[in-house]
Amino acid sequence: MSRQLPTLPKGTRDFSPVQMAKRNFILNTIKGVFEKYGYQPIETPSMENLSVLMGKYGDEGDQLLFKILNSGDFLKKVENEDLEKGSHSTLPKVSEKGLRYDLTVPFARYVAMHQHEITYPFKRYQIQPVWRADRPQKGRYREFVQCDADVVGSNSTLNEAEIVLMISEIFHQLKIEGISIRINHRAILSSLSKLAGNPELESAFCVAIDKRDKIGDEKVKEELIKNGFQSEGLGKVFPLLDISGDNTTKLNQLENVFTANGLSVEGIENIYSILAKVKQLGNPSNVVVDYSLARGLSYYTGAIIEVTLDDLSLGSLSGGGRYDNLTGVFGVPDVPGVGFSLGVDRIYDVMNNRNLFDQIALKTTQLLLVTFDQESFDYAIPIVSTLRQNGLSCELYPEPTKMKKQLNYANKKGISYVAIIGTEEVSSKTLSLKSMETGEQQKLTINELLDFLI
Amino acid sequence: MSRQLPTLPKGTRDFSPVQMAKRNFILNTIKGVFEKYGYQPIETPSMENLSVLMGKYGDEGDQLLFKILNSGDFLKKVENEDLEKGSHSTLPKVSEKGLRYDLTVPFARYVAMHQHEITYPFKRYQIQPVWRADRPQKGRYREFVQCDADVVGSNSTLNEAEIVLMISEIFHQLKIEGISIRINHRAILSSLSKLAGNPELESAFCVAIDKRDKIGDEKVKEELIKNGFQSEGLGKVFPLLDISGDNTTKLNQLENVFTANGLSVEGIENIYSILAKVKQLGNPSNVVVDYSLARGLSYYTGAIIEVTLDDLSLGSLSGGGRYDNLTGVFGVPDVPGVGFSLGVDRIYDVMNNRNLFDQIALKTTQLLLVTFDQESFDYAIPIVSTLRQNGLSCELYPEPTKMKKQLNYANKKGISYVAIIGTEEVSSKTLSLKSMETGEQQKLTINELLDFLI
Repeated sequence: MSRQLPTLPKGTRDFSPVQMAKRNFILNTIKGVFEKYGYQPIETPSMENLSVLMGKYGDEGDQLLFKILNSGDFLKKVENEDLEKGSHSTLPKVSEKGLRYDLTVPFARYVAMHQHEITYPFKRYQIQPVWRADRPQKGRYREFVQCDADVVGSNSTLNEAEIVLMISEIFHQLKIEGISIRINHRAILSSLSKLAGNPELESAFCVAIDKRDKIGDEKVKEELIKNGFQSEGLGKVFPLLDISGDNTTKLNQLENVFTANGLSVEGIENIYSILAKVKQLGNPSNVVVDYSLARGLSYYTGAIIEVTLDDLSLGSLSGGGRYDNLTGVFGVPDVPGVGFSLGVDRIYDVMNNRNLFDQIALKTTQLLLVTFDQESFDYAIPIVSTLRQNGLSCELYPEPTKMKKQLNYANKKGISYVAIIGTEEVSSKTLSLKSMETGEQQKLTINELLDFLI
Repeated sequence: MSRQLPTLPKGTRDFSPVQMAKRNFILNTIKGVFEKYGYQPIETPSMENLSVLMGKYGDEGDQLLFKILNSGDFLKKVENEDLEKGSHSTLPKVSEKGLRYDLTVPFARYVAMHQHEITYPFKRYQIQPVWRADRPQKGRYREFVQCDADVVGSNSTLNEAEIVLMISEIFHQLKIEGISIRINHRAILSSLSKLAGNPELESAFCVAIDKRDKIGDEKVKEELIKNGFQSEGLGKVFPLLDISGDNTTKLNQLENVFTANGLSVEGIENIYSILAKVKQLGNPSNVVVDYSLARGLSYYTGAIIEVTLDDLSLGSLSGGGRYDNLTGVFGVPDVPGVGFSLGVDRIYDVMNNRNLFDQIALKTTQLLLVTFDQESFDYAIPIVSTLRQNGLSCELYPEPTKMKKQLNYANKKGISYVAIIGTEEVSSKTLSLKSMETGEQQKLTINELLDFLI
């Protein structure tokens, strides 16, 4: 019977061993840094009640949620008139649950439900897949992993400073060079919008300003004017976005302008405090104050952080910020926090493009035992056991067969060494260790082999 | 505004940091053993096409699959007459995808799709959640993690023997004592059913025999007779299930009976071969031949393996077996293999009940720096950075505050040491290291502290 091969749902992927090794290298690096800074893992269920998810991501987000059909007779509550009213009003009758869309809403739900068990400040990280019914396109997936770290229940700027250091350390360990950790503050954006003359248009101001890198100043100005800003007011603001010099110079100049115009300098003070602590913690060189940065503006109320590559317009590798009310939407007030998120797929692509994985020894079997006949195979069985007891990751090819087939297996699996066992090795109680890289071969006893490989 | 707290969907769970530490200890142990034996990880998407999932788990399984509502206008293809026909015939019009129900079908789909890239024998492990719309009950979840390891493309009994050793090593490392690794063979069950006089009732024979431990011999016989077996034939079989002695004695006796009755001894030969290799690999003491073991009978065609606790009727902690046709259902013939699966939730429960986690240092922050005023806080910031650069997982409480609050934080988080920094420590450039366990306190320089803790 000839059948068509099965397929995968659009926008989803299998991860083969080589991809897993690369991804795990990234994830283990991230986890290691999170834990060094005292963050602890939690996990939440893949499914949440739709009452938890709906209305948290805007109308578009509601559309992009994957909804789960009620079990059993899902049409039980549906009537003919529902069909006429359409999918939107029928949805609540056939579905109660949806798949996680991000890690923030589940975390807020977690904090609300566990508020009395949690010891604050609560430093949590969470590395889990999320699902979005986005139109699939290159580099966009419907299932992808997010890595979030947040600390809630503390207003100290030490948290923001440590997040900057964590980001710096993660990219340093991954050997990804040429990144900028950009930082801004919601209160600075607020004062700039006021300076432009339209404090009531702050949201539109942020949305437009955030696009400077992509569409340029002229297009941003056009958009702002279309939204109700005046040329004259914008004329006061745009030169400030371009202040050059180091971070202190930028902050000093903006502070002078804000003070002269009677505007709040709260955001500037806050960034000063963060940068002072960043300096005390080790002062990474790539932290840049950027007044155009306005990501996640509906959510962040304090500092805003974004990581970009200097040499590519690949979008951001990481972003985060401070919020003052994580759980308000679940009826639990006064939970402030600050957090950030890393994009594993983008980091993976950058490292692949730059051949950074080649420099990393990806974990695989260290040694393959190769045999040609029943006698050497039997001789090898207790040896593979001894080697494993000594902590070596090793395999015996499961049957004596042609050398070529077994070496091909080692090659394909990226195994660095094979130990060849023939009649001579059996009688002399040795192994012939061959490096798959150099081809070099040496005859060793088991103890010598262990000394060599461990 | 007072609101009701959000809730979780039935049968799902949050994992808090302490539970995560325990679960990660189990999962890391399992991964470590899998990798030592040359198994490599893969991952498949959470969603599969319903065409891949449906019909693979029986009618009940089809019912228990979580189905995902098509995105957008999901009612598009539904007509009034569909409502009359009911949920069953409407399903294909509103849903194309479902959540993974186990790891075996996705693995078979993976092998079928990647058959030409794979190097055989292919040793893969997979640790991912699966979802089943089971009626929630104590200890049963609708989302739970499975750990599967399989090797496909090899008929060597070395694979079965290594699986026995892997199981033994995993439970040894987890310090779970009093387990039996029970082993049987499909061909033995087949010959026994023939000996009872009804080879055509082999399936019913296996289903009933597997329940001996739970319901006892009399009830099993009743069930068999109801299914068409005769008392006389069963009288030949039941004494054989109770043959006592070591494994060799059991196998020898059965072989004699089978030979005398002209029945196939293929299964017995196979178990001999597996046990001979198990012995060469280290001979764990708890491997028991058990002719009543018949789990997964519709699937397994060779050896059958199950791990049970000796002192509890908690069901099995692990099970597996050999199959001769993993991917046939996807049109790809001749992919034999052998594999096993570990139940993380059951292992977790056993370890919790036996207080085994208390003996394990669960990973958390190693040291908390405690300060009382701005001066000591500022003094501490570069120190926490230095300690982290030396590989210590540590935290500075994010603001100077009352000692009690900070010690309580360390306590709740299971942090073993705090370093107290007051005026005296600042002026003498030291830290007062306090053990949270013994209360002992000593004044140390930073270098002395690093020597002590690393």
